[in-house]
Amino acid sequence: MKIWFLGTGAGRPGKHRNVTGIALQLPDPSCHWWLFDAGEATQHQLLRTPLKLSKLEAVFVTHLHGDHLYGLPGLLSSRSFDGGITPLRLFGPPGLKHYVDTVFGISGTQLDYELHIHELTAPEGEIWDNGTVRIEAGALEHRIACYGYRVTEREQPGKLLVHKLEELGLTAGPLYGKLKQGQSVALEDGTLIRSEDVTGEAKPGRVVTILGDTKPCANVVKLAKGADLLVHEATFARGMEEKAHEFGHSTTAEAAEAAAAAGAKRLVMTHFSGRYGSEDLIRLEAEAAERFKPVTAAVDLMMLEVNRE
Amino acid sequence: MKIWFLGTGAGRPGKHRNVTGIALQLPDPSCHWWLFDAGEATQHQLLRTPLKLSKLEAVFVTHLHGDHLYGLPGLLSSRSFDGGITPLRLFGPPGLKHYVDTVFGISGTQLDYELHIHELTAPEGEIWDNGTVRIEAGALEHRIACYGYRVTEREQPGKLLVHKLEELGLTAGPLYGKLKQGQSVALEDGTLIRSEDVTGEAKPGRVVTILGDTKPCANVVKLAKGADLLVHEATFARGMEEKAHEFGHSTTAEAAEAAAAAGAKRLVMTHFSGRYGSEDLIRLEAEAAERFKPVTAAVDLMMLEVNRE
Repeated sequence: MKIWFLGTGAGRPGKHRNVTGIALQLPDPSCHWWLFDAGEATQHQLLRTPLKLSKLEAVFVTHLHGDHLYGLPGLLSSRSFDGGITPLRLFGPPGLKHYVDTVFGISGTQLDYELHIHELTAPEGEIWDNGTVRIEAGALEHRIACYGYRVTEREQPGKLLVHKLEELGLTAGPLYGKLKQGQSVALEDGTLIRSEDVTGEAKPGRVVTILGDTKPCANVVKLAKGADLLVHEATFARGMEEKAHEFGHSTTAEAAEAAAAAGAKRLVMTHFSGRYGSEDLIRLEAEAAERFKPVTAAVDLMMLEVNRE
Repeated sequence: MKIWFLGTGAGRPGKHRNVTGIALQLPDPSCHWWLFDAGEATQHQLLRTPLKLSKLEAVFVTHLHGDHLYGLPGLLSSRSFDGGITPLRLFGPPGLKHYVDTVFGISGTQLDYELHIHELTAPEGEIWDNGTVRIEAGALEHRIACYGYRVTEREQPGKLLVHKLEELGLTAGPLYGKLKQGQSVALEDGTLIRSEDVTGEAKPGRVVTILGDTKPCANVVKLAKGADLLVHEATFARGMEEKAHEFGHSTTAEAAEAAAAAGAKRLVMTHFSGRYGSEDLIRLEAEAAERFKPVTAAVDLMMLEVNRE
C-alpha cells in the first residue's frame, strides 16, 4: 500500500500547503485507491500524482468542515470527465448526502457513474469490506461530528512448506495453489491434506489508521491499536494544548502520545496550522520524537510505502 | 484598471489551466477589486497575485455551473482568515443564495463580515454603482441562466484650462479644485465662474465587458458596445460551431465576430476546452485575428492593464 499526502494544512490553503486530502493506494494487484477527505483543490493535487480518478473506488470524509469537504463536488464531477464509470462509494457524517445533492442540483451536475452515499451514524464499527481490505470507523472528538478510519488488509496466506509437501510425495502443480489459498485437498488414494498442515503461519494484513480532526480521546488509541501507520493531526505545537482542545485539535506531543499508547509502528503528523512554515517542521517533528519514533511531519505530495517488517 | 485571468479553462482543471476566475482591480485610488466567477482553486490562484481577499469588494457569478462556482465557498471563508471585515456583495443567478446558505450551513462556516447576496432576475440593467464604477448585467444564451457584465468607469473631469483662469485673474488654489470637480464658483465681486467654461472635455470612463459562457446572441454585442476590453469565451476552435452551440458555447471566430460587431477596442478570449493545449493557442489566436485585432488568447495568471487611448 502507498499513501499520498495531498494537502497537509489546516483551515485554508497557503502557498506551500493545501487543505486536507489523503490518498491510499490499495494492495496489489488492485489498481484502485481510496481518498480520505477532499479539501478544495484536492483534484488539482492529484494531477501531480500517478493516481487516476477513474480508479478511485471510495471516498471517506472525516467531517464536514470546509477544509476537508469543499473539493468533493469538483473531484466527483471530474471523475466523469476522466472516464470513471464504475460505482463510487462515499462515506461520511450525516449531512453529506444533502450537501452533495444540493450542490449538484444547483450546478446541474450529472455523473456518468453511480454514487452511493453512506452516512455514518453509529459511533464505531466496520463500514465496508471490499474483499481486499476492510475499513472501520470510530467517532472522534472535534467541534462537529468527526470520524477516524482504520483500514485493515486481508490476512495473507502463509508460505507453503515445500519439504512437507515433498514428504507427502506431492510435486509443484495446481494442488499447491489450492493449499496455499487455504483449501484442503483429497488425493486419489483418499488421503486428505489439510492446508494448515502444509503452510506456515498466515501473515496478518497491514493496518493504516487515518484520523480526522480531534482532541485526544479513547477512540484514537482504539482505532490506531498496533497500526503499521497512524496518520494523526497535529494542528498545534507542544505547549498549546489548551488552545488546541478549545478548537477540538491536538498538539504534536499529543499525537506522539497517542501513537505510543496504541503501540503503532509509525506516526505521520499532518493538518498543521497556517502559523507554521516549512522551517518549523523540524521542530514539530522533534517535539513528537521525544515521545514516539519513527515520526514524520508530512509535506504536500509526500508519498510513503506502508510496509510490514 | 488591471485584469487578472486566474483560470482560463473550461469544464475541469488541467495541469496548465484552472477553471474560470477573473479579477478586476478598480481604478486608483481604490485598492478594491472585483471577482468574476470562482471556479475551484480560484483562491489558490490568487495566492500567486498581489491581490488580497480582504480588499475584495464584490463577486459576480455568471452562472451556476461547477467550473464557475465551486471555488466560491472556500474563497469567501478564507476572506475571514485574511482579515476581511468589510461587507461583501455577491451577485449571480437565482439559486446562488440557496447554494451559499446550504454549503455554509452544513460545513458550519461563519464569516466575520456581512455577505449581501443579490440574485439577478431581470434580463438586463444596471445592478450596482459603487461611486467609482457602475456595472450592468445582461442575460446570455447558455444551457442554464447565465449573465454577462459590463463595467463602466465614472467619467473623468476635463482638464482645467489654466490660460482661461489666468485671464479671469484667478491663481492656483482651492477654487481650482472645485472648478475641476464640476462646481461653479462665485468670486467676491459677484462674478460667477462656471466649471464648464474653464475645463476641457470630460474624459469618458473605461469600459470592460466580461461575459459568461454563451453562444452568439444580441446581448453579447450590446454589453460589449465600444468596450475598451471585451472578455469573451472561445470554448472551441473555428469550424466547430455546431458542437459549440449544442453546448451553449462559442468558437474563436464567433468571439472575434462579436468584438467586431460591438466595435470593441480589444478582445481577450478565454474558457478554452481541455482538448486545446498550450501549443494550440497561436492557432486559436490567429483564427480570431482574421476577423478582429488586437486579440489575445488568455493564459492562466496573465495580467493586462486596461488603458484608454
